[in-house]
Amino acid sequence: MSDPAEPNEPKLGAALNTDLYELTMAAGYFEAGKADNRATFELFVRRLPWNRNFILAAGLAQAVDYLQNLKFTAAEIAYLKTLPQFEHTHSEFFDMLAGLRFTGDLFAVREGTPLFAGEPFLTVRAPLIEAQLIETYLLATIGFQSTIATKAARVVRAALGRDVVEFGTRRAHSPEAGVLAARAAYIGGCTGTSNSETGFRYGVPVFGTAGHSWVMSFPSELAAFERLQQLLGDSTVYLIDTYDTMEGARRAASLGRPLWGVRLDSGNLGELAVAVRRILDEAGLRDSKIMATGDLNEYKIQELMAARAPIDVFGVGTELATSADAPSLGVVYKLVELEAGSSRRYPVKLSHDKQTLPGAKQIFRAADHDVLARASECIACGQNGASCEALQRPVMIAGQLVESLPAIAESRRYASESLNRLPAGCLSLFAGEPAWRVDISPELAVLNESVSKGAAV
Amino acid sequence: MSDPAEPNEPKLGAALNTDLYELTMAAGYFEAGKADNRATFELFVRRLPWNRNFILAAGLAQAVDYLQNLKFTAAEIAYLKTLPQFEHTHSEFFDMLAGLRFTGDLFAVREGTPLFAGEPFLTVRAPLIEAQLIETYLLATIGFQSTIATKAARVVRAALGRDVVEFGTRRAHSPEAGVLAARAAYIGGCTGTSNSETGFRYGVPVFGTAGHSWVMSFPSELAAFERLQQLLGDSTVYLIDTYDTMEGARRAASLGRPLWGVRLDSGNLGELAVAVRRILDEAGLRDSKIMATGDLNEYKIQELMAARAPIDVFGVGTELATSADAPSLGVVYKLVELEAGSSRRYPVKLSHDKQTLPGAKQIFRAADHDVLARASECIACGQNGASCEALQRPVMIAGQLVESLPAIAESRRYASESLNRLPAGCLSLFAGEPAWRVDISPELAVLNESVSKGAAV
Repeated sequence: MSDPAEPNEPKLGAALNTDLYELTMAAGYFEAGKADNRATFELFVRRLPWNRNFILAAGLAQAVDYLQNLKFTAAEIAYLKTLPQFEHTHSEFFDMLAGLRFTGDLFAVREGTPLFAGEPFLTVRAPLIEAQLIETYLLATIGFQSTIATKAARVVRAALGRDVVEFGTRRAHSPEAGVLAARAAYIGGCTGTSNSETGFRYGVPVFGTAGHSWVMSFPSELAAFERLQQLLGDSTVYLIDTYDTMEGARRAASLGRPLWGVRLDSGNLGELAVAVRRILDEAGLRDSKIMATGDLNEYKIQELMAARAPIDVFGVGTELATSADAPSLGVVYKLVELEAGSSRRYPVKLSHDKQTLPGAKQIFRAADHDVLARASECIACGQNGASCEALQRPVMIAGQLVESLPAIAESRRYASESLNRLPAGCLSLFAGEPAWRVDISPELAVLNESVSKGAAV
Repeated sequence: MSDPAEPNEPKLGAALNTDLYELTMAAGYFEAGKADNRATFELFVRRLPWNRNFILAAGLAQAVDYLQNLKFTAAEIAYLKTLPQFEHTHSEFFDMLAGLRFTGDLFAVREGTPLFAGEPFLTVRAPLIEAQLIETYLLATIGFQSTIATKAARVVRAALGRDVVEFGTRRAHSPEAGVLAARAAYIGGCTGTSNSETGFRYGVPVFGTAGHSWVMSFPSELAAFERLQQLLGDSTVYLIDTYDTMEGARRAASLGRPLWGVRLDSGNLGELAVAVRRILDEAGLRDSKIMATGDLNEYKIQELMAARAPIDVFGVGTELATSADAPSLGVVYKLVELEAGSSRRYPVKLSHDKQTLPGAKQIFRAADHDVLARASECIACGQNGASCEALQRPVMIAGQLVESLPAIAESRRYASESLNRLPAGCLSLFAGEPAWRVDISPELAVLNESVSKGAAV
């Protein structure tokens, strides 16, 4: 395990990393005199993805970093001026853009919070232009890390207490996605990652010893193993499947200690683990471990654990870093309140199958259900009228961070504790009946009723 | 369409963005006196992914950028020294790492080249440590962009000449993945993207007008439409489904020109397009266009086109930017030659179902098949013994770029021309019989035979 490093977030030019229509709308709001309107947007999913009974929220730290550093450079603005979409836009808009920073409020659930359909991951209340511009980046940041944290939680759960290490950077959706997938996987419960940059930037524990090319670069497997043992001592893990797994296991056993263990990377992992365990035990290496890798996912791990395969650590790559069975999350970012001067409106969308509930909201969590309520409500939904936890908290006020965000290990612990409180139906790897009730508070229901009737058309 | 901007690649700290085992192996090679060995690695897929009959290579420009800028910072090296995996590593290794740059050779197929199982996207010949360290980043870069370029080629093909615009950043695997997905989608044949950063960095055409929040921010849909028309003139696209699509279409028609067209984003797109087309035509707006968006993919577009839906432009987001039906590519990076002093070895891996062919290779493409040959061969595989195209070309020699890489629009054109030469079976959206033959040259077969017999064990 590595020592936590100081956070070392790279500063990518991110202001232009948004859909162009956010910028044309910003220009339109500016030209229409709406620049001082205050908008409230919420980020949520309408439905849980395929085979998911919860979503584990993640990515808030990167969202905050983005908001704190939001700034258009002169080159970026010069580029925008060349686009035909801004042909009719006055230069005052670009002057405004050059000075634009995020000055709004951000409310959000903690990283590691399990959420359900309709519950906001975060709420932005800001001048309309700022709130609009940040839509795309926030969706991609929160949506992706939450997707991976959720997948990791499933994989870790399936491993029944065995360690799971994230190994997926090489198959992630770009190297940077690999770094962030590893971060999210750690929040979701993984023990660490193979990605060194994630260790460096976020203090996540890093793991890794040697691959097939190490073995192949020596004239014999034995020579490769001997050299590795000299290099790594107690951290030595022999990858034993380059030529023949059983032969590899016997060679590993013959070298004795120092040794952490061996890694299986192909073939029938359950059967091989039994045979390799026997070889190690017979050589007196009962404390040596077996790590298994190779196209694993939560379903295969559940099967291996059900068969009591003697595997101590799982390394999970492609399927974890891409959430292969549910590779995207239908996150949306919807306008729920609009304040212009002293007037306040609750816009709603009536598109087919895409209705939204109006107004800024709070999520109250009781022992066995949630209540989605208006943000202004304080409701008692616990047993015997006890108050219950309000999940959305202020994170930024007027563009300033309210307090430091939790350390990543703290978010990981919070996720684990929160998941442990969910019922078995939520934690099943397979979708069942809605396993967690989300009620609508009476006040929110009243607002929705009144707004729907008078919806703009 | 935007003017191409100058490439503006951000320089992320990338040297540590690699699996830790690449670094432990590097330390091991150094300690074992193998630092001056020269290794040849190839990057390829063993099998095509589900429902894919080709892979369109993409991402080479970012791979080259990475190699040209590879450098460890003092802070990164200090971090590595804290890890237990380097406890037994001598300080000379870290001194070497501080001065390490990529000094090797890179051979690669052009971006936009269709490839098949076993064919190398790129070949690296470099000092062993350099060649090893870059594995993870190259896999993630080439694997991801090739995945998306391939998906885009399928979607564009299904649209039968209608424009397809990439809209997926908000659902991509991180904001940076969104930028690169849009780049790859353009190479795969998309007309452009909604991602402004991709336009700024790579000169890809950008598109976008307004979303639901624009409509909802006005007291009425009509007011929102009027304002948009003032803002955008001939670029005006009304999003007409916020409240009621047919009402929205009538409002749009009532405002007349200037107008580019309308956008449908929910409901039955085929039926709505017919009805909306009639409304526009009856208002004399025959030249106004209909754009359709909303959970589209190549299969739904093929169905819409088969039904002759009057849709002029498709906007495709989530499924394109995540390649949802095949979200990863099993790219591997394998050691195929190793030179130590005057000796040369051809390592092979014999793991279950993971055999590799030895030696550096060239791909020769004839009119109806490929030949995978040794890199040293020059073979005539065209009709009547004519020579055929060698797809791998030198890109970097001794760490230096041989010539400028093609402009991205050139790669897009090359992809289109290359795909047009493939048989219908390759271009089907559905997997069939192996649609393209890849032969092994006699010399490569001989080498494989002799190496397999004498494989190290």
